[in-house]
Amino acid sequence: MSKLRVHSFALSLDGFGAGPHQDMDNPLGVGGRALHEWAFATKTFQKMFGGEGGSTGIDDDFAAAGFSNVGAWILGRNMFGPIRGPWADEAWKGWWGENPPYHVPVFVLTHHPRASLTMAGGTTFHFVTDGVHAALQRATEAAQGRDVRLGGGVATIQQYLRARLVDEMYLAIAPVLLGSGEHLFAGLDAAALGYRCVRHVAMPSVTHVVLARSA
Amino acid sequence: MSKLRVHSFALSLDGFGAGPHQDMDNPLGVGGRALHEWAFATKTFQKMFGGEGGSTGIDDDFAAAGFSNVGAWILGRNMFGPIRGPWADEAWKGWWGENPPYHVPVFVLTHHPRASLTMAGGTTFHFVTDGVHAALQRATEAAQGRDVRLGGGVATIQQYLRARLVDEMYLAIAPVLLGSGEHLFAGLDAAALGYRCVRHVAMPSVTHVVLARSA
Repeated sequence: MSKLRVHSFALSLDGFGAGPHQDMDNPLGVGGRALHEWAFATKTFQKMFGGEGGSTGIDDDFAAAGFSNVGAWILGRNMFGPIRGPWADEAWKGWWGENPPYHVPVFVLTHHPRASLTMAGGTTFHFVTDGVHAALQRATEAAQGRDVRLGGGVATIQQYLRARLVDEMYLAIAPVLLGSGEHLFAGLDAAALGYRCVRHVAMPSVTHVVLARSA
Repeated sequence: MSKLRVHSFALSLDGFGAGPHQDMDNPLGVGGRALHEWAFATKTFQKMFGGEGGSTGIDDDFAAAGFSNVGAWILGRNMFGPIRGPWADEAWKGWWGENPPYHVPVFVLTHHPRASLTMAGGTTFHFVTDGVHAALQRATEAAQGRDVRLGGGVATIQQYLRARLVDEMYLAIAPVLLGSGEHLFAGLDAAALGYRCVRHVAMPSVTHVVLARSA
């Protein structure tokens, strides 16, 4: 059965999944890039963006696991871009250029309809305006038996957690204080929602944490 | 110069420093004890409570550092006991029995005056009703050149952080979800207050984090 999985989702020590004030220059919010340094250093991420080298080992294993058996993605709109409100035109095609690193159908949650967008390399962005359950249903169908990866951001993950639809969540806690931004666990009782920590691998650069929902 | 230091202050993955519903049976709040398993396992804590054995190594080094060069403590009232409001009588003498593990003067923040309480082993509890600055001043004098350790709980640490009076803060992030309780960083911009992570030691049982305030 197809699962909904979160992977390599980075949090600061103070619990923020992104910095404040996202814009063109700060797709991860101000200071947010520091959350992801461990990931950028891995072979998996270097290769994804056309680089060579990068680390192998546990950090890379966690990064790579996030791309294994994934047949579709779901993204919140802010993870797709900095534009808010109605789509003025079709110019914005995501942060990632002509060949985004998904290579499968990607379902973007938005309140504003837009035609699907076919990119190079197998990625198609579909814009879903009827909510998280509809997005998951469409993504699950598109995944054809493989799993659906939930990319983020924080508000999107919170919606799926509250709906008890996330099966596995791999977090990466980076040794950084952000001070403000989007807080993953604010107002969310993850224990009451049935999640528990089932794995914890502490690395020099980051602490990997695996949360799973009890049956 | 005397510093104000926080040590071995444990947080859950979701940022809680204590569980909810503190009472006689749950001095650390419901579920809160799980935050401290790493500490109870150390030689330092075993010895403190009259036990033998316990782990040595990095976890124990962090635990032991919290007792080095400490000349006085400051505690919030809830860390001293479960009683709220005025002191009905003098019966409550803390969670720790006749010989508490402080062995120096301890300043307890409260809104309700009470006479000082001399315990066995060098611990005297003083009750401070005129706020965090007054408590720090009295503790610093009592420490006679040594440092002051700020024990907690969350609300007390937040007050001292907001007043920019904490010099060093060692946190221990445990691989546990509490879901609710007292959140250390809620509504607190630690980065804007000048704190940054200066050390990060990931252990199997817990991730040790050292925060310091920029000059």
